[in-house]
Amino acid sequence: MKTLITGGTVVNSTGTVAADVLIDGETIAAVLSPGSSLLGFDVAANVDTLIDATGRYVIPGGIDAHTHMEMPFGGTFASDTFETGTRAAAWGGTTSIVDFVVQYAGENVIDQFNLWHTKAAGNCAIDYGFHQILSDVQDSSLTAMDELLAEGVSSFKLFMAYKGVFLSDDGQITKAMQKAASNGSMIMMHAENGSIIDLLVQQAIAAGNTSPYYHGLTRPWQAEEEATHRAIMMANLTGAPLYVVHVSAKQAVEQIAAARDQGQNVFGETCPQYLYLSLEEQLGAPGFEGAKWVCSTPLRSRAEGHQHHMWQSLRTNDIQMVSTDHCPFCMKGQKDMGIGDFSKIPNGIGSVEHRMDLLFQGVVDRQITLERWVELTSTTPARMFGMYGRKGVIQPGADADVVIYDPKGHTSIGVGRTHHMNMDYSAWEGFEIDGHVDTVLSRGKVIVDGNQYVGTKGDGRYFKRGLSQYLI
Amino acid sequence: MKTLITGGTVVNSTGTVAADVLIDGETIAAVLSPGSSLLGFDVAANVDTLIDATGRYVIPGGIDAHTHMEMPFGGTFASDTFETGTRAAAWGGTTSIVDFVVQYAGENVIDQFNLWHTKAAGNCAIDYGFHQILSDVQDSSLTAMDELLAEGVSSFKLFMAYKGVFLSDDGQITKAMQKAASNGSMIMMHAENGSIIDLLVQQAIAAGNTSPYYHGLTRPWQAEEEATHRAIMMANLTGAPLYVVHVSAKQAVEQIAAARDQGQNVFGETCPQYLYLSLEEQLGAPGFEGAKWVCSTPLRSRAEGHQHHMWQSLRTNDIQMVSTDHCPFCMKGQKDMGIGDFSKIPNGIGSVEHRMDLLFQGVVDRQITLERWVELTSTTPARMFGMYGRKGVIQPGADADVVIYDPKGHTSIGVGRTHHMNMDYSAWEGFEIDGHVDTVLSRGKVIVDGNQYVGTKGDGRYFKRGLSQYLI
Amino acid sequence: MKTLITGGTVVNSTGTVAADVLIDGETIAAVLSPGSSLLGFDVAANVDTLIDATGRYVIPGGIDAHTHMEMPFGGTFASDTFETGTRAAAWGGTTSIVDFVVQYAGENVIDQFNLWHTKAAGNCAIDYGFHQILSDVQDSSLTAMDELLAEGVSSFKLFMAYKGVFLSDDGQITKAMQKAASNGSMIMMHAENGSIIDLLVQQAIAAGNTSPYYHGLTRPWQAEEEATHRAIMMANLTGAPLYVVHVSAKQAVEQIAAARDQGQNVFGETCPQYLYLSLEEQLGAPGFEGAKWVCSTPLRSRAEGHQHHMWQSLRTNDIQMVSTDHCPFCMKGQKDMGIGDFSKIPNGIGSVEHRMDLLFQGVVDRQITLERWVELTSTTPARMFGMYGRKGVIQPGADADVVIYDPKGHTSIGVGRTHHMNMDYSAWEGFEIDGHVDTVLSRGKVIVDGNQYVGTKGDGRYFKRGLSQYLI
Amino acid sequence: MKTLITGGTVVNSTGTVAADVLIDGETIAAVLSPGSSLLGFDVAANVDTLIDATGRYVIPGGIDAHTHMEMPFGGTFASDTFETGTRAAAWGGTTSIVDFVVQYAGENVIDQFNLWHTKAAGNCAIDYGFHQILSDVQDSSLTAMDELLAEGVSSFKLFMAYKGVFLSDDGQITKAMQKAASNGSMIMMHAENGSIIDLLVQQAIAAGNTSPYYHGLTRPWQAEEEATHRAIMMANLTGAPLYVVHVSAKQAVEQIAAARDQGQNVFGETCPQYLYLSLEEQLGAPGFEGAKWVCSTPLRSRAEGHQHHMWQSLRTNDIQMVSTDHCPFCMKGQKDMGIGDFSKIPNGIGSVEHRMDLLFQGVVDRQITLERWVELTSTTPARMFGMYGRKGVIQPGADADVVIYDPKGHTSIGVGRTHHMNMDYSAWEGFEIDGHVDTVLSRGKVIVDGNQYVGTKGDGRYFKRGLSQYLI
Repeated sequence: MKTLITGGTVVNSTGTVAADVLIDGETIAAVLSPGSSLLGFDVAANVDTLIDATGRYVIPGGIDAHTHMEMPFGGTFASDTFETGTRAAAWGGTTSIVDFVVQYAGENVIDQFNLWHTKAAGNCAIDYGFHQILSDVQDSSLTAMDELLAEGVSSFKLFMAYKGVFLSDDGQITKAMQKAASNGSMIMMHAENGSIIDLLVQQAIAAGNTSPYYHGLTRPWQAEEEATHRAIMMANLTGAPLYVVHVSAKQAVEQIAAARDQGQNVFGETCPQYLYLSLEEQLGAPGFEGAKWVCSTPLRSRAEGHQHHMWQSLRTNDIQMVSTDHCPFCMKGQKDMGIGDFSKIPNGIGSVEHRMDLLFQGVVDRQITLERWVELTSTTPARMFGMYGRKGVIQPGADADVVIYDPKGHTSIGVGRTHHMNMDYSAWEGFEIDGHVDTVLSRGKVIVDGNQYVGTKGDGRYFKRGLSQYLI
Repeated sequence: MKTLITGGTVVNSTGTVAADVLIDGETIAAVLSPGSSLLGFDVAANVDTLIDATGRYVIPGGIDAHTHMEMPFGGTFASDTFETGTRAAAWGGTTSIVDFVVQYAGENVIDQFNLWHTKAAGNCAIDYGFHQILSDVQDSSLTAMDELLAEGVSSFKLFMAYKGVFLSDDGQITKAMQKAASNGSMIMMHAENGSIIDLLVQQAIAAGNTSPYYHGLTRPWQAEEEATHRAIMMANLTGAPLYVVHVSAKQAVEQIAAARDQGQNVFGETCPQYLYLSLEEQLGAPGFEGAKWVCSTPLRSRAEGHQHHMWQSLRTNDIQMVSTDHCPFCMKGQKDMGIGDFSKIPNGIGSVEHRMDLLFQGVVDRQITLERWVELTSTTPARMFGMYGRKGVIQPGADADVVIYDPKGHTSIGVGRTHHMNMDYSAWEGFEIDGHVDTVLSRGKVIVDGNQYVGTKGDGRYFKRGLSQYLI
Repeated sequence: MKTLITGGTVVNSTGTVAADVLIDGETIAAVLSPGSSLLGFDVAANVDTLIDATGRYVIPGGIDAHTHMEMPFGGTFASDTFETGTRAAAWGGTTSIVDFVVQYAGENVIDQFNLWHTKAAGNCAIDYGFHQILSDVQDSSLTAMDELLAEGVSSFKLFMAYKGVFLSDDGQITKAMQKAASNGSMIMMHAENGSIIDLLVQQAIAAGNTSPYYHGLTRPWQAEEEATHRAIMMANLTGAPLYVVHVSAKQAVEQIAAARDQGQNVFGETCPQYLYLSLEEQLGAPGFEGAKWVCSTPLRSRAEGHQHHMWQSLRTNDIQMVSTDHCPFCMKGQKDMGIGDFSKIPNGIGSVEHRMDLLFQGVVDRQITLERWVELTSTTPARMFGMYGRKGVIQPGADADVVIYDPKGHTSIGVGRTHHMNMDYSAWEGFEIDGHVDTVLSRGKVIVDGNQYVGTKGDGRYFKRGLSQYLI
Repeated sequence: MKTLITGGTVVNSTGTVAADVLIDGETIAAVLSPGSSLLGFDVAANVDTLIDATGRYVIPGGIDAHTHMEMPFGGTFASDTFETGTRAAAWGGTTSIVDFVVQYAGENVIDQFNLWHTKAAGNCAIDYGFHQILSDVQDSSLTAMDELLAEGVSSFKLFMAYKGVFLSDDGQITKAMQKAASNGSMIMMHAENGSIIDLLVQQAIAAGNTSPYYHGLTRPWQAEEEATHRAIMMANLTGAPLYVVHVSAKQAVEQIAAARDQGQNVFGETCPQYLYLSLEEQLGAPGFEGAKWVCSTPLRSRAEGHQHHMWQSLRTNDIQMVSTDHCPFCMKGQKDMGIGDFSKIPNGIGSVEHRMDLLFQGVVDRQITLERWVELTSTTPARMFGMYGRKGVIQPGADADVVIYDPKGHTSIGVGRTHHMNMDYSAWEGFEIDGHVDTVLSRGKVIVDGNQYVGTKGDGRYFKRGLSQYLI
């Protein structure tokens, strides 16, 4: 199958160019000056399919490096399966995800890794890789870090919160970091001080403060700033590279920026919710409504300026990329377990479908440049997590994961509109985007065409990742 | 003229890929998967020239955004003409320079711009653009900023030192910044406190401290840090973007990093001399030898760690690019004017030929990555100064400014070896590089082939630059 | 004349104690446990005067280290003479001032010093010392620094603004700092970037923005922050101690704090106006009213939080003391010169009478402790400027400059109320203070008794100051 | 008993004065101008004792706010009892200690408080107060915080290290801080990350690195900086005042300084060992010698500049006071438990006798001023811990705890010389001090006279402390 995308503007992270893109089978074969021919050879005449991208952007497919499909949590499961979640991702211009294999305290790491393969295999609409969660790090987990590296898992997520479930203590974290420093893998960190949070939650509940709003108040910025700093110090001590997930507090950003200014390999990811939504407006919605936006780290106060600062951080590269932390739960039967006790609300927001659109709106609003949009959503995720060359770029040899994006199109987000995630509500209901995902190719195959999904369950394949290409 | 570069590894700022590069006339026509054919079409058979780049890097030609060819200074001229200087640049893998039009206090800006065109036209081996120096900024200079923008000059350099010659006072700088904030151009700054330096120089000479070493001691880091901070504050006040040239002091880097962390558009450039050379070793050489390395800002103390910190800044992107500040003077007849009075030594070091090699050695020494090498020397200069798309990248539509670099080659720097600059000494005598510039193409034409220069005087053309592509 | 103050609570900068204070002639002879006797010796029976301070604070008299009595400025004179100004000071519990000898550019330093002696001699109600202003520093001024040190002037004020009048350029400042570093004296700095301000003023006037409010807008915080940083760097380079006068911007405070954290001898003074008044409320008053509060540095924006941060700085000792910068001008005949052009409004606010009260209100409002009140207004000024032991403390051997302050009293500030300064308005009209200066002694003589002034013109004597006692 | 100290120079924290000090019974009755008489009354003739302090300093007795007399630790006890330790303190010019009541995990707080009273009562040479250690904070401990406040214990020490022994987790710490914020007491913190340290210790031992030097290497500065920052964040969250004990790393100082610059009530104490001794010289001594200096936090590297920075911090007030952390163990029978395993060496250094001398040497060496000496060793400890007015100052009403210190005397420290602590070695062997404690009075009674101890066991009394006088 040979495809030529003509007339479009190819956007890479460093700039734009008018160029045609030739796809041969699953990979990009060439990027050519516009005109559909080469040295007199009529390229267009020799392909199976022509896609006209005139007036539109041709970008590397989005990479969402932080998703939790069908994740078991608090007696339920994230409502998107690998099937529904990756299909929704495809709808939104995301052509790869890196999902988290969950190993809870007491479980065996390799067993879980195998289990996750079983869940995903044959079900995904787009390519997928795995990070490995290590909870309550044991010596066997350290050994598994080397084994998994050979299996294409080069990043390991630790938690500084959720005692008895995910939490590793600082000695355990230090041990895992020593291993990462020696085998070149990346430590990802959920940086919140769980011990403080557990206390505040217990005190809030005891005081009868049970509404979703208190989810935000009991996870104050100090708990995030503190854990971020602590993780940075352990990384400093061990020499491990560190990637802080779902950064939401500006003070945490400042810690990351300070560490980077002193030469440490410390990176930060934020999510669309920390750019657009707030404690006051969403978590503070009347009644139990706020439960829709209960996630951790929590939405932050707009009065304190976190959202403003976060956009700035994207411009200054103090925050390097944007993932979703996609972890959807329905209001009915899931979120509603927390009526009367916010601490029982499953934590998570579903955004995998909307990340590319929401960030493009940042381009429209002049928060970021067009190139930075591609860098934040595709190129850096690929480089950060060892996928670059095959993902995150429009160049020969790369997988033909390509999105044709129309800056004159429009997207109305919400249940009953663009929503394809398996959720009974949308955290982004009513958001209007001045742009539209027109066409999505996954390894050369068109899977979204205009407003139709034309792919097949199982199109997606497991991607063995290498070491981060961001480090020296 | 059609050329195919085969078998090489294309290095862009975000990653590497095995790919062939097809050049048609002056531009890159396509980047193709290796194999010299496309959909059965034998590309190799349809070009005029085949260049085998097997085992070597194919990179966008270097862009040196800070040169001073035949600059008048202190009664003499920088010893490289546009002819000799750009040819030496070509030898070293640099295919574009941005030179500075000099307007001294009292001269007319537009007259000088025209004069510089006369000097360069028909003489250059490679493409060239101009920044405009504005000295003692007058209202007519502000008007000229708009006019020059239309002529492809989008960056204006001001000086905080050299009273009566280059210096603008803070009010004048603020006025120029207001203009830049309104027309989108970039303010470049020589950030040293001239008033303090003039005093220290006068005191040193009065005390009989006349050797080149005192050039360093009379331009202390405090004078650079101070001026850098002051420029940043004026940029903060006016909203102008700011690019600090030839940053040498780690404390100045810290000021730039702090401003960036707070969201300001502030950038910094360093030069190879601040990465490799020092106050103690070079400026402190016996007798008058140190004069070879008299430049401003001066070489800094290795004991104080400036060089170490500067490499780190390249990794963390607190410093964004590397230029040379190429401003060569011969020892005989030029530098020797300062025997007995260091303040009369013409300021400048010649490096335009060696920048690509010296920075590649940083890759070999694991100071920076291969991609960062290309970013620092080519991609960022192009983006920073409005040349991207045509310069600084290997992609269709770009000017075919291409260098084939051999990581297994070797380069011995020094007079009598690779030296082609019009200087009677080399500031880099004896430096050994584990790499080699094999082939250089300028807009599709091979101008350096192995160890032969095969270009022609006048190959280079003036490049009208646009606004910086780094800003939003 | 022997006096015993009984029953009061002596407040020093480190704590409070119930104690009697015995004064013999001009000095404190003893501090005794309460009870008016010593080893059976009836002290009370052997003194000429008994003052009952029961329920009240006995504090060292205030020292206002920044006043400008009858200062010539812009063709007029500050409206308080040494006679009226020092008497008003006495009313307010201030028993010493350090006034500034003015040497304008072109004048001779020693001549001016002598002239100021003539102005003050025989006219002052309280003791006085002199700082020396050095404008456009010449070599003769450097020599004068040594001579004046012998005359009891150990602090020299330089200006970074007011070109042609006060301004010294950075080379001149550096030279004066070199001298200070060698003879142990203190450099005081008016830290505003005059070159930037002159431009902004000229642009505002040209744009028809002539009201007093624009005085604030044309002296932005960046101009103060910048100059503060620059002064710090010159102090760093030369090793001189630095005292920044009338700090008003929080960003300037941050520069001072950062320098101190790195071990530099840098100090900062603020004034009551920067603690209580603001750009929006006072400078922005309707019509020409704002002229009442035109002073430099200007009142800062409350929305930006400068006042809040300044109180905090007093608590954290990032700002070490509070003076008034007393420089009064009447609205009629003086301030009104600036109707239609704010830049012609004489700069200055009169506060010498109210500083002790205004700061005491900070104690009432729990912004500072009682001890810190004494430290900020008396003890630190004495130590900072070489007067300690004789001023700034209640201890034997000290001059009996004592204030009895009633925390249960009340003071209503304003023309027609407590106002004794020679001004036709009060910058503090309507301020209500929960405390009252009851009795003031200057070198053992009661000069304010309840609501009566009982001193005599000429009570005050010149005080030869030594080196700062704050330095090592 | 009435005593007059004549002819001396009284040194308080803000300045010096020539004055006589009259003591009547246990308290200071008056401070008088020199001359032994008052209004003709011959004071000298009416006292029982005259002490001639001519040429010497009269200072408030030292307050050592951090001692561990006969502390149970690792199966043994600190070798100084309250009797021997306080007597040694007296020899060295310290007239008050604040010792730590130890409550180990599992013990009852109030029981331990009572037990400590039993240990100390009737045994002390000087006055003593108690801080309370809270380990593994339980709800009963929170209640005890209120009860103990009534008993004169206003400061509570928590540990971030020593799991199962002292450690409280962050939730427990936060709870105790909430209590402190509400009742006004001070939280003291042993700020080291125990979890990281435990890992490093275990790894070092496993690797056969068992010598005392590894005590230092396994407690890296990162562990101290991290815990300091974490404690500061919890204090920020709760509003509690925080006092960090035995700060040794410059990076920890920087955290404290940064918090103070932002207005937090955070304080730091250092100890003589962190000013004079180092990892390389002492801990790295040959064989098992280094055990003499095993204490926690550990001695830091001189090459990294911690000692230099710590003296600076004393000058800038980023560190507010100096205590000893006196916790002596003999080499024979105690320290030697750690031969072959540094982790079994009892942690502690004995310095209670030498603090005043060691800090005075800092005056001689021009590291601090004379006044700062008194402030660091006596005035600030008194104010910080609620003893001021009765301790820490020479003024009427204060306890007559007075030291006469001879700046022309000499003190040779070491076993067989001035050493009176119950230790078989001295951590300060061979230190020579250019000054000498001549006379020590405790509440009016001479207890050290020249080179004789003339006090009696039990002279010292328990001191009920109030709230910190440093806070607002």
